[in-house]
Amino acid sequence: MFLIRAKDLRTTTQGNLYIHAVLVDRSGQMVARAWQATEEMFHAMPEGGFLRFKGRVENYKGNLQFIVDGISPAEAGTFDIGDFLPKAPGDSDARLQRVREILSGLTDANLAALAEVFLTDEVLMSGFRRAPAAAALHHAYIGGLLEHTLSLLEVALKVIPLYPRLNLDLILVGLFLHDIGKAKELTYETAIGYSDQGQLIGHIALATMMIEEKTKEVAAKTGKPFPDRLRWALQHIVLSHHGQYAFGSPKLPALPEAMAIHYLDNLDAKLNMFFTAVDDDRDPHAHWTEYVRAIETKVFKLDPTTDEPI
Amino acid sequence: MFLIRAKDLRTTTQGNLYIHAVLVDRSGQMVARAWQATEEMFHAMPEGGFLRFKGRVENYKGNLQFIVDGISPAEAGTFDIGDFLPKAPGDSDARLQRVREILSGLTDANLAALAEVFLTDEVLMSGFRRAPAAAALHHAYIGGLLEHTLSLLEVALKVIPLYPRLNLDLILVGLFLHDIGKAKELTYETAIGYSDQGQLIGHIALATMMIEEKTKEVAAKTGKPFPDRLRWALQHIVLSHHGQYAFGSPKLPALPEAMAIHYLDNLDAKLNMFFTAVDDDRDPHAHWTEYVRAIETKVFKLDPTTDEPI
Amino acid sequence: MFLIRAKDLRTTTQGNLYIHAVLVDRSGQMVARAWQATEEMFHAMPEGGFLRFKGRVENYKGNLQFIVDGISPAEAGTFDIGDFLPKAPGDSDARLQRVREILSGLTDANLAALAEVFLTDEVLMSGFRRAPAAAALHHAYIGGLLEHTLSLLEVALKVIPLYPRLNLDLILVGLFLHDIGKAKELTYETAIGYSDQGQLIGHIALATMMIEEKTKEVAAKTGKPFPDRLRWALQHIVLSHHGQYAFGSPKLPALPEAMAIHYLDNLDAKLNMFFTAVDDDRDPHAHWTEYVRAIETKVFKLDPTTDEPI
Amino acid sequence: MFLIRAKDLRTTTQGNLYIHAVLVDRSGQMVARAWQATEEMFHAMPEGGFLRFKGRVENYKGNLQFIVDGISPAEAGTFDIGDFLPKAPGDSDARLQRVREILSGLTDANLAALAEVFLTDEVLMSGFRRAPAAAALHHAYIGGLLEHTLSLLEVALKVIPLYPRLNLDLILVGLFLHDIGKAKELTYETAIGYSDQGQLIGHIALATMMIEEKTKEVAAKTGKPFPDRLRWALQHIVLSHHGQYAFGSPKLPALPEAMAIHYLDNLDAKLNMFFTAVDDDRDPHAHWTEYVRAIETKVFKLDPTTDEPI
Amino acid sequence: MFLIRAKDLRTTTQGNLYIHAVLVDRSGQMVARAWQATEEMFHAMPEGGFLRFKGRVENYKGNLQFIVDGISPAEAGTFDIGDFLPKAPGDSDARLQRVREILSGLTDANLAALAEVFLTDEVLMSGFRRAPAAAALHHAYIGGLLEHTLSLLEVALKVIPLYPRLNLDLILVGLFLHDIGKAKELTYETAIGYSDQGQLIGHIALATMMIEEKTKEVAAKTGKPFPDRLRWALQHIVLSHHGQYAFGSPKLPALPEAMAIHYLDNLDAKLNMFFTAVDDDRDPHAHWTEYVRAIETKVFKLDPTTDEPI
Amino acid sequence: MFLIRAKDLRTTTQGNLYIHAVLVDRSGQMVARAWQATEEMFHAMPEGGFLRFKGRVENYKGNLQFIVDGISPAEAGTFDIGDFLPKAPGDSDARLQRVREILSGLTDANLAALAEVFLTDEVLMSGFRRAPAAAALHHAYIGGLLEHTLSLLEVALKVIPLYPRLNLDLILVGLFLHDIGKAKELTYETAIGYSDQGQLIGHIALATMMIEEKTKEVAAKTGKPFPDRLRWALQHIVLSHHGQYAFGSPKLPALPEAMAIHYLDNLDAKLNMFFTAVDDDRDPHAHWTEYVRAIETKVFKLDPTTDEPI
Repeated sequence: MFLIRAKDLRTTTQGNLYIHAVLVDRSGQMVARAWQATEEMFHAMPEGGFLRFKGRVENYKGNLQFIVDGISPAEAGTFDIGDFLPKAPGDSDARLQRVREILSGLTDANLAALAEVFLTDEVLMSGFRRAPAAAALHHAYIGGLLEHTLSLLEVALKVIPLYPRLNLDLILVGLFLHDIGKAKELTYETAIGYSDQGQLIGHIALATMMIEEKTKEVAAKTGKPFPDRLRWALQHIVLSHHGQYAFGSPKLPALPEAMAIHYLDNLDAKLNMFFTAVDDDRDPHAHWTEYVRAIETKVFKLDPTTDEPI
Repeated sequence: MFLIRAKDLRTTTQGNLYIHAVLVDRSGQMVARAWQATEEMFHAMPEGGFLRFKGRVENYKGNLQFIVDGISPAEAGTFDIGDFLPKAPGDSDARLQRVREILSGLTDANLAALAEVFLTDEVLMSGFRRAPAAAALHHAYIGGLLEHTLSLLEVALKVIPLYPRLNLDLILVGLFLHDIGKAKELTYETAIGYSDQGQLIGHIALATMMIEEKTKEVAAKTGKPFPDRLRWALQHIVLSHHGQYAFGSPKLPALPEAMAIHYLDNLDAKLNMFFTAVDDDRDPHAHWTEYVRAIETKVFKLDPTTDEPI
Repeated sequence: MFLIRAKDLRTTTQGNLYIHAVLVDRSGQMVARAWQATEEMFHAMPEGGFLRFKGRVENYKGNLQFIVDGISPAEAGTFDIGDFLPKAPGDSDARLQRVREILSGLTDANLAALAEVFLTDEVLMSGFRRAPAAAALHHAYIGGLLEHTLSLLEVALKVIPLYPRLNLDLILVGLFLHDIGKAKELTYETAIGYSDQGQLIGHIALATMMIEEKTKEVAAKTGKPFPDRLRWALQHIVLSHHGQYAFGSPKLPALPEAMAIHYLDNLDAKLNMFFTAVDDDRDPHAHWTEYVRAIETKVFKLDPTTDEPI
Repeated sequence: MFLIRAKDLRTTTQGNLYIHAVLVDRSGQMVARAWQATEEMFHAMPEGGFLRFKGRVENYKGNLQFIVDGISPAEAGTFDIGDFLPKAPGDSDARLQRVREILSGLTDANLAALAEVFLTDEVLMSGFRRAPAAAALHHAYIGGLLEHTLSLLEVALKVIPLYPRLNLDLILVGLFLHDIGKAKELTYETAIGYSDQGQLIGHIALATMMIEEKTKEVAAKTGKPFPDRLRWALQHIVLSHHGQYAFGSPKLPALPEAMAIHYLDNLDAKLNMFFTAVDDDRDPHAHWTEYVRAIETKVFKLDPTTDEPI
Repeated sequence: MFLIRAKDLRTTTQGNLYIHAVLVDRSGQMVARAWQATEEMFHAMPEGGFLRFKGRVENYKGNLQFIVDGISPAEAGTFDIGDFLPKAPGDSDARLQRVREILSGLTDANLAALAEVFLTDEVLMSGFRRAPAAAALHHAYIGGLLEHTLSLLEVALKVIPLYPRLNLDLILVGLFLHDIGKAKELTYETAIGYSDQGQLIGHIALATMMIEEKTKEVAAKTGKPFPDRLRWALQHIVLSHHGQYAFGSPKLPALPEAMAIHYLDNLDAKLNMFFTAVDDDRDPHAHWTEYVRAIETKVFKLDPTTDEPI
Repeated sequence: MFLIRAKDLRTTTQGNLYIHAVLVDRSGQMVARAWQATEEMFHAMPEGGFLRFKGRVENYKGNLQFIVDGISPAEAGTFDIGDFLPKAPGDSDARLQRVREILSGLTDANLAALAEVFLTDEVLMSGFRRAPAAAALHHAYIGGLLEHTLSLLEVALKVIPLYPRLNLDLILVGLFLHDIGKAKELTYETAIGYSDQGQLIGHIALATMMIEEKTKEVAAKTGKPFPDRLRWALQHIVLSHHGQYAFGSPKLPALPEAMAIHYLDNLDAKLNMFFTAVDDDRDPHAHWTEYVRAIETKVFKLDPTTDEPI
């Protein structure tokens, strides 16, 4: 069973109709052709919807291509839409549990209260658990945002104590929240993309506003104002975490904690790009991957510690 | 009477003490020297505070310099602090009244309600009326934000009807709000500069959050939700109005109304820079002003329609 | 009847010849295929020339495709070549008349005389009336230069009086001439593109030289020299109107009038790009257009004042 | 005798008046102080004019400073204004003669006729002979334009024959004219700077217009039109010779001859900067010059072929 | 006989197998199709290996396409692999001889000894003789590095004596070595590309290390140390010869000799790009070549000295 | 006792001589004036040498200034030149010991052997122990290179195990060597600056060559070749560790280990800049430091976790 991402009714040079479609399941997407097609069959295929397909896979120019022999309806309730999008490896529930555990160790009362308000927002946490970390560049799969965030929290727990002038609590909450706007910026129900709100406003402004709102909730709960400077610092961390104007940060890091978050975030995201480039490369004989635009280079695939051939 | 912006106790090459100070009133600032100074006299001068000065003005390297003969206290209540900062020409009250008048003509009910909520926020409007439009580049004087905003509203009323596909109401409210975060980003009580909040967060994020908050107030008042898409559009206008990532916009204009606001805003700001450069130029014989960094050029001061000498 | 922009003799996988051609009329261009082709038929189709075609239109991958059943000659004099290029909406004669009317209101005698010399150059005005405003980016159709220029003149008549320190006459003539070099830079007889002169020299240098030449004509007619400074100012406006070195302006605006022209020009050009992007978008269900390179973003197509679905 | 570039009446800390002035002669400029000054003496010193000065030179912070003991008028006719500006080494008349000689060897009739028209324009050649090649960066002295141009012609005579596909005549005339607009762009009578026309239009557009005008003169003299393509090629060479938009070229080199001229021009100009940086460096013990902004580096002053100490 | 660069087993819309391959010989590459293919035939074609092909050439979309009728093995020893890569015009042996001759004229003893050590390294010289000067941009063919290097040496012999302050010997050896790292950076046995070492380290660092090593050999041979400063100067020339950080130079030219080498290198490389663009252009009627990315423009193909049509 | 970095003989406006000098000891530098100076006294002060000074400190414009009352010779052997340069806090010997300890844990035999060869090069290690990490930007003090390197090793030991696909040994040796060229690039005997070799070649090329040389030593010791790929990987790490061409890296990171080193290096260097900016800031009342050019912002000095005033 596949999600039909695009379909097209075409004519062969002999004038016969055939359907060219793009089918998706969790393992990726594939071009499909149904050679003896009719207009009825074409209209029976819902774009953005699901069908069961029968057929066989052929190799076309190094890519697999599915030759459709028959279709049948996909009854609601018999499938899980999540199967049609790529997913982060591992267990998202365990990851979210570990995030809660790490944040339960915060010693700053205000930051602890703020984390609590975020963690108990069920709707937001449900999105945080499922959202990808990006539409395309890195961790671009269901659960990627959580995977990326937890990875950063673990790194911070190890590294930050080596810089005792940095405030670990501020960094942990800053990392937890730095990309949380992506839960609203991106769509990840039937495809990974941008929501209208996300495209118009962006996750940086969205997270800044969430912090504004949640600190008011904290104040309402505790009965005393959330410190202005702490709220501004968290918002500054979010607003500056891309590190450069050219990458959409309207502010440059002016707190050491903001600078640290910028570099740790980049480290984790870029390493994910490297590993993904290697894993996705299809040529087992090549020493280098294809050119990866976001890192402006190809990646070297050989083990550098030996001179063994590939 | 002057505000003392900076002071310094120095020794002449003969070993005599003198005070070097920077005095400010609305007309600008001036270096002052008190030649026969004592430490007591030095400590009697409050940095960031006010004193009455007696003395005479001398010309030093083309700049005026004030030679202090005596000082006496400035009794509270006998002066208006506003006299010590540069002010926009003209009448701010009349300008604010004209803004209200223009916005009272809005036909879109949601935008009209939103404008109303902003205009009835007394604290915010008090800041909006006094804030400069920038710390240094253009309209950098008390009342500059209001002067700049009203100028843009008047321009829009004239131009936008020539582009009937543009939504005039959206543009008017967008212009009204595009820089309103400056009321919080800047300080303009005893000097023009940045607040901590402003430096950490910036007027773009501040205005985005104000719109979030005020649309909730509208919904609370009217009992029906403020349209999401309209809120996003206004926030998008604010977030994109600098037009380029390099100038601190985390989003690029994706609505024609946002693009129009970007260009009208620039037109008004840049013209103010040109006129200010000409007005501030001190050499009546020069054909060109000094180099103006923000426009990357000198400005030609001669009347281009004649060949008359200067 | 169509203009044949490109043609190609191809073989099907069965070894049969067919012709693949690109046909153009004013409504746009279309791929055509003639399945049972011969070499004779192929040579009978003049690339860059005209033929009458018989056949039917099919939908291929969302694009229309014309299946040719027969061809017959297009007799000279039976068609208007202008029908094969896209045209500005509306009436170019009326537009040119309106330009003349606006320029007849100039009060500066030198500028009025210069405008007159340009307006009475029949050859130039014929090109000015037909030229596009660009080869691709905005107003890229027959009459686009005139449409863009008139739009700017109307805008200036409304806006500039709000800035009384600006010289309206200088701006009107500057706008009239800012892109007039495009009448020579571009070709727009059988296709829209660049002339050799245009590609080597560019419209900015071309217009600068036209002003040099026409001011000499004014001096010859009036018997007194055209003021140097005014000629320089107009040439400076032309040379600086792209606003940045990176966009091919060898000078940056150093007159407030030059700066105003730069921003108004951009406003009008960019709005045309937005509206064209929306109008040309082929997916009625999409909330966003395709990415538009010149404005570095997609354009949001929904009405921002409502939450109505598309 | 010196030119007085700037003057200032100042007060010592004892209240005595003194004059601080900048005096210029061909060897450079020097700060001067007249300790026992009066207002009459101050007004007797004409800014931009000439006086004879008596006094002595002191060393002040490594710079020479002239202590004025007396002044007396400089009678017109007793001095040559050219003595007060830096001059190219060597004989400008001989250089101009050599330029004429090289251009007399042109074999292309049209280019030879064009060169002739330029060479017989007495006013222009007088400027060409005296103009500097730049206001500040390289060959920034009287006769610098001619020195730079001749150097390039000599280089071209040697190099271009190694690239037989290049048209030597086109390159020779292109080099002769590439910077000729500087004769009008710059001022070099009492100081080296920019003319109003030069600052508004620039030498690139000026030279483009000169070529337009002079080719018309050729056509008038010869009675047959100057080839369009050749005129465009020369104008293209001028318009593209800075090689990048960012350096004020509105066109990029699209002819191999234009590209060659761009690189030869840069080679000659940059070498002049290197040699000037070394010659002007005042510290005989330093291995490196000061940072030179136009080449973004310090220059190494030691002989690289030895390990001898400085 | 051809080298098989890529191959692909595809199915026609009728379900028949065919092979799509890219075949290469020295004249360039060509798409080939074998319509009645079998899996055996497909596996018999070695990717990166050689076969003899029988068939006919067809014109497909303006490109030649080879229709395969039969294949037969290519016996080892019956062909020269060098025939399958593009080669520099002319005689590489004569070129290398001329390089030796020029370098035999060095007068600086240290530089002469260093050149000798390089020229007698047989392995290196064999690579230097065969290597291309680039993987794609200019002189991208067997023998291109030598052709480019010799061209530069000849240019330097002519030009540098016009700048007597430049050290000709240093420039000659600098030019000889500036790109010698390409002999290791590139691969040029069965295809032109990058070696792993080249891609990881780059020819600039490689040549820097070769100079380090070879100067040690000189010292070992002569028994006295090679002058440090001279070694540094040569390494500086290599490290800075791209002229800008953005082009991979970690140092900017700080010696006039380094600057001269940078410009001469660019001149020669860019002229090769221009001539190649013109020679490779396939449309005899076009006035302009296709856009050439490395020079950011199309190239004008017409003779600029006439108005003759093409 | 102070090092005399610069000296100057000046005249007061009364014509009296005085000496203006810049004196340095480890705590920083200070302007000194000796009011009743003679030429003999001036020549007795060795620039770049040492003297004992008697006098008193005055506050001049917020900076301390030393008024010299007398000078006496500084006998050799009575002082340690190291006292006159800023030093890293803490114990360099203990740091170097810790580096040895960490590198003794390497498990890859080749990397362990290479580290050993570096660590036993006494001359190099002596420089490594004393060198600053930069001339100005970060860790710009004696011992800074070692402090920075050790800090990175400690960070890597904590972080890298969280990314098990990264090769920890490769990263540890890469970090150890990434800046080791600075031991030769910089001078740090009497002042911190660049050596001639350093300025001409740079630490990146220097370290690349050291690795080339030391791997040969390893091969000589072990009798088997050091793996090419491992040598290239280490050189690639050095060549790419600045991460961008614009920052002098001729290669971009193409190994995940190289990318990780780039970010960890930046993190440590930038945090040092933040802390230094705060520590060096002289205004205890300011909320922000001065603008720091390398991070393009001011640094916020207040504790963000509270709203306490400063």
